[in-house]
Amino acid sequence: MAPEIAPQPVHGAAVQDLRLTLENPLVLQSGVTLSPVTLAYQTYGALNAERSNCVLVCHALTGDQYVAGTHPVSGKRGWWDDLVGPGKVIDTNRFFVVCANVLGGCMGSTGPKEVDPATGQPWGLHFPVITIRDMVQAQAKLIDHLGVDKLFCVIGGSMGAMQVLEWANRHPERVFAAVPIAGSYRHSAQNIAFHEVGRQAIMADPEWAHGNYLEEGRTPKRGLAVARMAAHITYLSEVALHRKFGRRLQDREALTYGFDADFQVESYLRHQGYTFVDRFDANSYLYITRAMDYFDLAQENDGVLSQAFTGTPVRYCLISFSSDWLFPTEESRAIVRALNAVAANVSFVEVESDKGHDAFLLDEPEFHQTLQGFIDGTAEIRGLPGRAKGARP
Amino acid sequence: MAPEIAPQPVHGAAVQDLRLTLENPLVLQSGVTLSPVTLAYQTYGALNAERSNCVLVCHALTGDQYVAGTHPVSGKRGWWDDLVGPGKVIDTNRFFVVCANVLGGCMGSTGPKEVDPATGQPWGLHFPVITIRDMVQAQAKLIDHLGVDKLFCVIGGSMGAMQVLEWANRHPERVFAAVPIAGSYRHSAQNIAFHEVGRQAIMADPEWAHGNYLEEGRTPKRGLAVARMAAHITYLSEVALHRKFGRRLQDREALTYGFDADFQVESYLRHQGYTFVDRFDANSYLYITRAMDYFDLAQENDGVLSQAFTGTPVRYCLISFSSDWLFPTEESRAIVRALNAVAANVSFVEVESDKGHDAFLLDEPEFHQTLQGFIDGTAEIRGLPGRAKGARP
Repeated sequence: MAPEIAPQPVHGAAVQDLRLTLENPLVLQSGVTLSPVTLAYQTYGALNAERSNCVLVCHALTGDQYVAGTHPVSGKRGWWDDLVGPGKVIDTNRFFVVCANVLGGCMGSTGPKEVDPATGQPWGLHFPVITIRDMVQAQAKLIDHLGVDKLFCVIGGSMGAMQVLEWANRHPERVFAAVPIAGSYRHSAQNIAFHEVGRQAIMADPEWAHGNYLEEGRTPKRGLAVARMAAHITYLSEVALHRKFGRRLQDREALTYGFDADFQVESYLRHQGYTFVDRFDANSYLYITRAMDYFDLAQENDGVLSQAFTGTPVRYCLISFSSDWLFPTEESRAIVRALNAVAANVSFVEVESDKGHDAFLLDEPEFHQTLQGFIDGTAEIRGLPGRAKGARP
Repeated sequence: MAPEIAPQPVHGAAVQDLRLTLENPLVLQSGVTLSPVTLAYQTYGALNAERSNCVLVCHALTGDQYVAGTHPVSGKRGWWDDLVGPGKVIDTNRFFVVCANVLGGCMGSTGPKEVDPATGQPWGLHFPVITIRDMVQAQAKLIDHLGVDKLFCVIGGSMGAMQVLEWANRHPERVFAAVPIAGSYRHSAQNIAFHEVGRQAIMADPEWAHGNYLEEGRTPKRGLAVARMAAHITYLSEVALHRKFGRRLQDREALTYGFDADFQVESYLRHQGYTFVDRFDANSYLYITRAMDYFDLAQENDGVLSQAFTGTPVRYCLISFSSDWLFPTEESRAIVRALNAVAANVSFVEVESDKGHDAFLLDEPEFHQTLQGFIDGTAEIRGLPGRAKGARP
């Protein structure tokens, strides 16, 4: 496959913000044509001469392209800095790692907070509803642009796992290995319900102004914070919440008989909610949650999930976490069964963890070891160099 | 124990709204004195000559005193009409059934929406924070008023179960049998977190007006609806949501690529949210959720739950539901272990059900049979007449 756009210089450690504006409009799954489309992305490591060592990382609902190193906005470590970097599991000394802010996002890629050139105003609710497939087709253009025909690996957790499945399903010839982590082939009724609560919380905020808050100089902070709080509970396990907070009080000796945050868990949730609004756009939250709700790889294949994988050459590794109740192991197992039904190359590990869905973002040794094993083994088959001796972990 | 107030005529089937205004102020757990205190209640069946057949039903967070028959406001059946009535499990031909709207509620009992006589305005946030213990001490005054020294049975689910435990703990000599269903001895961190989301949703609504919406003629409908939606998800199991709705679309053939309720589960949730605001007061929601959060029978006993039950003469029957993730079986089991540790009289059944927490409100045959068996056996020990032959179930 010829690159649509000539390759640009390959970047090393993330020190600059990269942008690609597609030459052609994007025809979305809805049929709507979107133009112009810009993807904000980061790369880590270098593409090898064979262009065979590219790892595409797909981020989750509120993630972004700053996978490793220091996040330029928050000043914190990238969301997968535990995994991605020199000598790490996704070793940037060996792999050329790419991550793009998803279409519809709010970290530089085209999304509802960006300006619609046709009106000179932020897109707001005039932005078309996008899908996981649309995110992936935009990423495919970026991969073209980078001069990569075939990805060594596509990897991601949660919504990232949906993109991984979409990649492997739509572009099996361009994916050597696929690692969907803590994901599903379709969003469950319960998950749609939680997303709907979040959306309703945002839209209930008068500051949302029917989606026009940017034009009106307003911010639906409270609605977005409530949405984040509700979602955040689903990212943790009951056990994790109990261990972290239990019924411990926050900076006080006794109950205050009021509505302040008496309990640590309340204080923590409020903090999660109110720091989130500083880094995320409310309309993006609507669009991205909608994209997840719409994802259903079985439905797209006449209700038979295995049809999505017939004849796939992709090597799969699925990983779930035992205490994840948002994307429970059963969801991954359904994918594994479908892959087995078409004799695909698949390995599957349910990692024992009490940290809930969030475990895919955390330093979970069994998870990291599983991933290390799969990546090293698959790299060898792909003819990529092995890990340097003494490298972590 | 002498009735504080002379017994009033005993009422039969619920045809009139009953009110008791306490003669004396109530000293709350917080130390605050509340006056006047009115309880709105209903009775079903008749008190026997021995005054030994009284069953006190305790309602859950959004329940009320209209247990059986037709609800005067909604026109629907009472919330436990499946269980309470002539010939039913809680047989009003045999038992004198009492249920009071909880203190802090919004169906006639003293709560934040009632008028504070000191100001002539609704209490709003000037209403004192109340606890499960306060609800129970108000109920005890009602039971005094009805001329009942010793309840045959105190029964309730969810927050009702907390009241049952409080009754049996504070007034063991006044309770012959106690049936806490789908409950806990303390609210977990996860449950506090979900309540906090609901409270934040309400308080984020500008129509809430810092709690003064009644004075200002406003209603925080959107905030309360969001709170209800988030809570409603926790009342159902993932399996129940999947079975009821799955990913089925609402009155349409295909996705609309918009933010309307494409999915049935969204439509259902919105309906749950927006019908709730017609029957519930937002400030009551704040106060009652807070009362649940504060409940911790272990903490009140130096962290040793069994101390709450030392020497208890009460016969306990605990019931949980296998798919209840809001008040999981493990919570009931902890109570059973504490009761066993002090050699209390306790039976325990985990009912197999995929209906989640809501199962305690539904027609679940195993649940009803379990309850029937316990009530009949305990009634016999108490010297109460058995079921009429041919009576249901």
